[in-house]
Amino acid sequence: MTSRDGYQWTATTGLRQGVPSISVISPSTNVLSTTEDWDVVVVGAGYSGLTASRDACLAGLKVLLIEARDRIGGRSWSSNIGGYPFEMGGTWLSWGQPHIWREVSRYQMRSELEPSFDFSRGVNHFELRTSSQGSSTFSHVEEDALLAGALQQFVDVDGAMGREIIPYPHDAFHNPAARQYDDMSVLDRLNALAQSLTPNERAVLESFILLCSCGTLETTSFFEFLHWWALCDYSYKGCLQHLISYKFKGGQSSFAVKFFQESLATGRLSYAFNSPVQSINDHGDKVVLKTRDGRQYSGARLISTIPLNVLSSVIFSPPLSAQRTAAARIGHVNQCVKVHAEVSSPDMRSWSGISYPFNKLAYAIGDGTTPAGNTHIVCFGGAHNHIQPEEDIDETKRAVENMSPGNMDIKRLVFHNWCKDEFAKGAWFFAPPQLLSKSLDELRCRQGNVLFANSDWAVGWRSFIDGAIEEGTRAAMTVIEELRQAPVVRSHL
Amino acid sequence: MTSRDGYQWTATTGLRQGVPSISVISPSTNVLSTTEDWDVVVVGAGYSGLTASRDACLAGLKVLLIEARDRIGGRSWSSNIGGYPFEMGGTWLSWGQPHIWREVSRYQMRSELEPSFDFSRGVNHFELRTSSQGSSTFSHVEEDALLAGALQQFVDVDGAMGREIIPYPHDAFHNPAARQYDDMSVLDRLNALAQSLTPNERAVLESFILLCSCGTLETTSFFEFLHWWALCDYSYKGCLQHLISYKFKGGQSSFAVKFFQESLATGRLSYAFNSPVQSINDHGDKVVLKTRDGRQYSGARLISTIPLNVLSSVIFSPPLSAQRTAAARIGHVNQCVKVHAEVSSPDMRSWSGISYPFNKLAYAIGDGTTPAGNTHIVCFGGAHNHIQPEEDIDETKRAVENMSPGNMDIKRLVFHNWCKDEFAKGAWFFAPPQLLSKSLDELRCRQGNVLFANSDWAVGWRSFIDGAIEEGTRAAMTVIEELRQAPVVRSHL
Repeated sequence: MTSRDGYQWTATTGLRQGVPSISVISPSTNVLSTTEDWDVVVVGAGYSGLTASRDACLAGLKVLLIEARDRIGGRSWSSNIGGYPFEMGGTWLSWGQPHIWREVSRYQMRSELEPSFDFSRGVNHFELRTSSQGSSTFSHVEEDALLAGALQQFVDVDGAMGREIIPYPHDAFHNPAARQYDDMSVLDRLNALAQSLTPNERAVLESFILLCSCGTLETTSFFEFLHWWALCDYSYKGCLQHLISYKFKGGQSSFAVKFFQESLATGRLSYAFNSPVQSINDHGDKVVLKTRDGRQYSGARLISTIPLNVLSSVIFSPPLSAQRTAAARIGHVNQCVKVHAEVSSPDMRSWSGISYPFNKLAYAIGDGTTPAGNTHIVCFGGAHNHIQPEEDIDETKRAVENMSPGNMDIKRLVFHNWCKDEFAKGAWFFAPPQLLSKSLDELRCRQGNVLFANSDWAVGWRSFIDGAIEEGTRAAMTVIEELRQAPVVRSHL
Repeated sequence: MTSRDGYQWTATTGLRQGVPSISVISPSTNVLSTTEDWDVVVVGAGYSGLTASRDACLAGLKVLLIEARDRIGGRSWSSNIGGYPFEMGGTWLSWGQPHIWREVSRYQMRSELEPSFDFSRGVNHFELRTSSQGSSTFSHVEEDALLAGALQQFVDVDGAMGREIIPYPHDAFHNPAARQYDDMSVLDRLNALAQSLTPNERAVLESFILLCSCGTLETTSFFEFLHWWALCDYSYKGCLQHLISYKFKGGQSSFAVKFFQESLATGRLSYAFNSPVQSINDHGDKVVLKTRDGRQYSGARLISTIPLNVLSSVIFSPPLSAQRTAAARIGHVNQCVKVHAEVSSPDMRSWSGISYPFNKLAYAIGDGTTPAGNTHIVCFGGAHNHIQPEEDIDETKRAVENMSPGNMDIKRLVFHNWCKDEFAKGAWFFAPPQLLSKSLDELRCRQGNVLFANSDWAVGWRSFIDGAIEEGTRAAMTVIEELRQAPVVRSHL
């Protein structure tokens, strides 16, 4: 099946919208009558919605899953092109991410991982190109030392590499002193370190931070970066392991379909794709959802997994709280540009590079070898030097080529423009200063019969698939408890 | 409530069997008629059984939970004595353990952790006492360096600190070359390193390994130790974090009761404690369980969470496979002696020590401050120099005192003798050489309508609460899928 989402370019086909993916669901609905009353309506078939739907179905509830797109996965999905899974969005996972790993384990997919990096052959180096210092080549050991050294200076606010400020990564405001760092942008922190960082340290540090936030240095919360650091075992090695090292051999969608299939197998899942939501109306006794094309569905509860940046596009009645509305208006700052390039050189498999800040893409790695024998390079850019990659494909190609001049013989480009995607309006969540300390608690609250579940306001691996599953689990548990029928055996505890 | 399990000693009361615990379930059963037919009978109310029961109840199945003891938790339970939770068995957890952490998150207990170590006051040192080198005192930084250096030599079989031999900790035989290390005991490995370890390195290394296995150096599989190392992020710092740093403020039983309460709240949990099992008979159409006192219960499926070392005490019909029987006869090697001592000195809070190999307890740390202002010291011994701590309480006291002569003014002792416990026959699983490479796959197999779920044969954090939850999840998922009623809505995927 082919999704409307995503783009690919080759010299022979030119730029085309839509890419094949096993995440596309066909037929797009199994709902026979919209007058049915569901126990719970779940809005959004990303991992939060998939998890919430599955858990509710397993618990015996009648579930309706409503999705604007033609596919599951939300901001994480893979496209199979030429027998190779290109990851259009959220990709990497690790066994240090508890919610996703529990599912990997549960679905017996522990042997389905493969490493992104392969330094066993080819150029086997890191290429640093900066506006001020020109171009240099380093071994990967030197790359790690450069980044680790810069990061350690950056995060060491407490003489303990952040361990005192955030002793519990899954309870990040445990030490109230952490809140002060949410008043700071990463630029504030960088300015305080201006004298102690070498130009190369500063360049790789800024690139790495912007790889995480895809905002600008001014719009990236220093606290949230510290939170990522804590989640990554307070080390650069941990960052590599948890953020960018391991992915599914079959692509993210090979994992997402497990959730959907399991829900379907219960016989209790109704679903409707291609169904953008217009309004959500909580009548007290039930919640009525209206789609843009005028269909209405109702349930005793509704779980909204609509991302923060999209929340204001749906009319809620009663209206969203003033604080949630304000947070949605501010939004998160991640304007990631992720571009996959298939390049002819097999030697680039062991290459990594930073071209910053002059280039329209900043960070890239060799991420695989395609069945055609080409190297798959994944490139990242963001708000600091933004492009809309489909608007000027030659500019996009130049940005890829600029990552390693002379070595990027591009055979294919694949990407999803998350920034112009009306159902995402950005990639994974990254907080601007003050958003979390002011609004995280509110974003996690329910309003009446409407619950809100999204990785954007997860507690642990916020922004990650792990956080999405955390949130879907939380919402489903609440709904299941509330809608449970009266026990037939009395509790004795 | 007071459990029959466990012992405590004070000067005024002397040695007494039984300690108070919130894990005791009263009344001990809610079963009105044994002639009922359950969907699934779960044997054992440790974390495997608690998880399996809960998941099956949530999925709408009628569950009977049968337990030999008077309490939940199996090899993990806590006793509240004088307002302080003494951990009788499995204690520590971390956010790097995915199955337990998913549950911590789901039950909103992320803020319920506290650290075991507190180096902020008191003696703040490590005391090493060995048969050959006498007594020395080190800073904790020196302690860490000594242990880290010794461990790195020990595990570095591949020049990559074990990362090449076990690249995926949750898929430990991924690299078939790992199997060779299951033919080796840790003594084999130590002998190969004999020339390169200092006497102090050798002493702390042996003590640390035996703290993990509680077997002897000859009976501890080198592969399984490498597997623990891989799970602990291939570092001593990771070992500390994952193995011994964080525990529940309210004790393990404050967590276990969440599973039991949630199962009860579904109205689908029947349970019978004080019900040791005599036989399990799979008739093909149903499984019939008989208790030692002659009660019979039947279910469509049975999930046995009976530990490996206890498996041969129950009569299975049809009999267990030859390979499973052989593995059960070999058993695991962990004969842990865990003794809690409340000592009067507040300064010992920041103390840690090793007394090895001469002493009957080998490893101990300051683990808390009791409401009375005393320091809680937790001490570990094992098979290498074994005691039955209740048989000669003066010997046990001397073993505690020998950990730090002159500093252990013992006010109270608390312990559970896992080795003489007929429902455990040892503490957490630790493999002798060849057990895992020969029998792990078989131990994970079902036989007809009987499924086997126990941390003893988990894939990831085997031996840990995490592994128990992994296993309970796996068994429940299988049973739920098999017993699901025919779907009313057709699958469209």
